[in-house]
Amino acid sequence: MGLRVAVMGATGAVGREMLLTLEQRSFPTSSVKALASKRSAGKKLPFRGGEVVVEELTHDSFGDVEVVLASAGGSVSKEFAPSAVKAGAVVVDNTSAFRMDKDVPLVVPEVNPHDLDWHKGLISNPNCSTIQMVVALAPIHRAFGIQRIVVSTYQAVSGKGALAVQELKDQVEALRLGQPVQCNSFPYQIAYNCLPHIDAFEDNGYTKEEMKMVNETRKILGDQTIMVSATTVRVPVFRGHSESVNFQTRKPATVADIRALLEKAPGVKVMDDPKKSVYPTALDCDGRDETFVGRLRADPSAENAFNCWVVSDNLRKGAALNAVQIAEELMRRNLIPKAKK
Amino acid sequence: MGLRVAVMGATGAVGREMLLTLEQRSFPTSSVKALASKRSAGKKLPFRGGEVVVEELTHDSFGDVEVVLASAGGSVSKEFAPSAVKAGAVVVDNTSAFRMDKDVPLVVPEVNPHDLDWHKGLISNPNCSTIQMVVALAPIHRAFGIQRIVVSTYQAVSGKGALAVQELKDQVEALRLGQPVQCNSFPYQIAYNCLPHIDAFEDNGYTKEEMKMVNETRKILGDQTIMVSATTVRVPVFRGHSESVNFQTRKPATVADIRALLEKAPGVKVMDDPKKSVYPTALDCDGRDETFVGRLRADPSAENAFNCWVVSDNLRKGAALNAVQIAEELMRRNLIPKAKK
Repeated sequence: MGLRVAVMGATGAVGREMLLTLEQRSFPTSSVKALASKRSAGKKLPFRGGEVVVEELTHDSFGDVEVVLASAGGSVSKEFAPSAVKAGAVVVDNTSAFRMDKDVPLVVPEVNPHDLDWHKGLISNPNCSTIQMVVALAPIHRAFGIQRIVVSTYQAVSGKGALAVQELKDQVEALRLGQPVQCNSFPYQIAYNCLPHIDAFEDNGYTKEEMKMVNETRKILGDQTIMVSATTVRVPVFRGHSESVNFQTRKPATVADIRALLEKAPGVKVMDDPKKSVYPTALDCDGRDETFVGRLRADPSAENAFNCWVVSDNLRKGAALNAVQIAEELMRRNLIPKAKK
Repeated sequence: MGLRVAVMGATGAVGREMLLTLEQRSFPTSSVKALASKRSAGKKLPFRGGEVVVEELTHDSFGDVEVVLASAGGSVSKEFAPSAVKAGAVVVDNTSAFRMDKDVPLVVPEVNPHDLDWHKGLISNPNCSTIQMVVALAPIHRAFGIQRIVVSTYQAVSGKGALAVQELKDQVEALRLGQPVQCNSFPYQIAYNCLPHIDAFEDNGYTKEEMKMVNETRKILGDQTIMVSATTVRVPVFRGHSESVNFQTRKPATVADIRALLEKAPGVKVMDDPKKSVYPTALDCDGRDETFVGRLRADPSAENAFNCWVVSDNLRKGAALNAVQIAEELMRRNLIPKAKK
């Protein structure tokens, strides 16, 4: 009755979260395959009270698989996703490898589930910092039109992977012991510091992470005229990305209008009563599925401008959960070829 | 040959930094008085290789004082600054108590030293997050006119004082030991978290800290038409505020124009070669006097728009150093009544 699912990159921070999410959401599976590099083969991962044994990822891994959730890095996806598609599986790819391909839908299920209808075997999961922003802004865009976004992010180290999480822990411990700090995952010390540098720099002075927020937002919202200016910053937080989002609407709107939209928006939880110190923080969102919005206020510095503070668990909604939700929506729409009724 | 100086709130994070700054800059003093609450009287503070003994702050503390550097909290300044002025001293006040009074100059020496000329005994030192922003933007404002600023901050815990610094340390240690985290200086855990809440909330949904960035920027730059939208956020950094600053100029400018202005701007150090991972971080600026600017780039999302990343030591340029520089400028301009030649 269930689907045959494979998780590519199962031992990574997002891969483990994918297994956990399948379990927590009682995703219907008849089999779950954990795929990773040869180095991790034989390793056991907890799943539904038991274990799955990690298998080596090869081009022949997908014969008996209907859905692949992939999060093993862009180069791995580029190499192996086509084999999975050729074997008839649908691949939900969490890497940036195919996101801007015009043949590949880029989907946030609360926002553009209809884009799944034209998939050709491959669906991209957007970047974590983009997902939470569009979950919050999509209903506003539909009602009033988003004209411009100026966003600054406060991104957790887990977005960079499990080694980066360990690096923050190791740095804090080294500093406690008065020992030298080692930097591998990040160019400089991240403990007690903020680094305005996520992913590589492009020629225009922006990082790839920043350009993802520009280009992916437009693709997901299906509107190439939306202007986005992003500054993406790594902060010493383990889990949960926060975003300071300034946006301007095309049509006039009030804070009450926008709050009303957000209150009923799917996947959004408004957490906004500043005088009682109610606003979301990364810690509040750890392990939660929703995108939390607080600090909503008019910005008198420009016409139809507003500020808000958007927080979500980067490993859940920003990665694993969104991927599993895409698989759920594919089932609902009967869009999984091998499982077609 | 030197001045008779008193430091009000000498035992606090900024007070200690004021003593250190007087020492490091060889500020000419004939006497230095360390004033604090009765509780701290008798305590010894290191100064110029020796010590100063803390005296209790009273209304009679200022008879023999020419310059007061005050950083003991707004209510203390409100109570004692008038007594110091009455005694003929010039007070450089680091609190927000008098900043928006029209009779009180609000001064960043690199930006508006001329405003010292009309002082009536009391000069306000601006808010830390404002100082570093205007140091970077003032030369751009003069050349091209700043029309609008959208700023999101990443502010160190030391901005809240010495107890807040200890609180971050204690929380990290409690988490290491698996013990409950105590929150006193901050409403929620700051360790491994970001809090979009600095100072109290006003009715408009902004914090006082955010409104300081709006109102003080206008007063310092002497232009009430500059639009500012601020989101101020506390991050788990000990020292050094970072700011993601998006700004629009009135007249067209290029990145090269702006870089050239910043390269020669007083108090500014450009640190901007992203492809070589050169950009400022809070750790780089710890104990440094300059305001560092990096990540300068055009923002194609609006006309004449730019982004940059501005970092400075909040206890130095953001507080103690700016106050001492004001005292230096008062000397240079012969504006210290008791010391008038």
